Amino acid sequence: MNFPSKLIENAVEELAKLPGVGRKTALRLALHMLKHESEDTFSLAEALVKMRTEIKHCKHCHNISDTEVCSICSNPLRDRSMLCVVSDIRDVIAIENTAQYKGLYHVLGGVISPIEGIGPSDLYIDALLERLPGSEVKEILLAISPTMEGDTTAFYLTRKLRDFDLRITTIARGVPVGGELEYTDEVTLGRSIVERTAYGKV
Amino acid sequence: MNFPSKLIENAVEELAKLPGVGRKTALRLALHMLKHESEDTFSLAEALVKMRTEIKHCKHCHNISDTEVCSICSNPLRDRSMLCVVSDIRDVIAIENTAQYKGLYHVLGGVISPIEGIGPSDLYIDALLERLPGSEVKEILLAISPTMEGDTTAFYLTRKLRDFDLRITTIARGVPVGGELEYTDEVTLGRSIVERTAYGKV
Repeated sequence: MNFPSKLIENAVEELAKLPGVGRKTALRLALHMLKHESEDTFSLAEALVKMRTEIKHCKHCHNISDTEVCSICSNPLRDRSMLCVVSDIRDVIAIENTAQYKGLYHVLGGVISPIEGIGPSDLYIDALLERLPGSEVKEILLAISPTMEGDTTAFYLTRKLRDFDLRITTIARGVPVGGELEYTDEVTLGRSIVERTAYGKV
Repeated sequence: MNFPSKLIENAVEELAKLPGVGRKTALRLALHMLKHESEDTFSLAEALVKMRTEIKHCKHCHNISDTEVCSICSNPLRDRSMLCVVSDIRDVIAIENTAQYKGLYHVLGGVISPIEGIGPSDLYIDALLERLPGSEVKEILLAISPTMEGDTTAFYLTRKLRDFDLRITTIARGVPVGGELEYTDEVTLGRSIVERTAYGKV
């Protein structure tokens, strides 16, 4: 693609580095910025730079935070006997949006994936094990996506956690709410039968 | 959506103002930036601000440009007897990429659209009419999208241009190259028959 201006070409190339943004989309975004107030572009650029420079990771749970200790870890109303282990910050946001969980979190920063060269030492697993002695944690809820890598990570964690006197739980797997039985894959449907719960339990 | 950090919330809100970017996509982009080098975010922000501050519009054709007169208008190899009228900068880029056009351009900056409140005075139509007297232009090629608004704009232009001694042409409409006859809409197929060309002409 030939651009009439070096300035727009640079902007398009930088935008196209973002995930899911190709050169056509990048051009559309750049032209959108040119059509609108320059203040809009400045405040976007400022918000991005500010986020990238000032954001911290909570020293306890490794969630992103504006402060040394995140708003969840420092909240006195949170149940400190419960620790939910997730792979990613996005999972914290997803679980928080359900409003069904009142405990603390621990973000691993990924899952074990030999193909991508990510081993246990690349994740905050040691940090999790160091966090437990002397803490009030009684239950660890593993909320890791049920993929091959996620299950491997969960299995590794249960082996590491068995020396502690803890209840280890995992999120329920089954037919999604609103899902249709006939379109549910066999493994999920099979597990939903094996792990059936008493009717009207929730 | 609840965010664990005000900084990421601001960045997400700014990103979500871009066309085609929702809050979920914005969050994915923000987390991508947090995972990668801060230099990547800084150079993106810098490229955007630089583009928005320094970019100019060519004083002849209103195309975007790094200089007062754009690289097309200032190119001595361009055919100055031909002027292609387009609605948008994107159309210039699209036509340039075909490498089939060697003349000059004139960017209108939009099309006449009473619904959106865009009249002829909001476009660079007067600038086009002022450009013609004393110029070398012999032919005006109207390359405006064949939509309702585009056709209205083209019709308005032909009325304004008829006082000048010019050949006025428009881009061919017909079945797209690689298109299938049975899936072509009736109007396009009908016009492609009425405006048939001699076989092997191109």
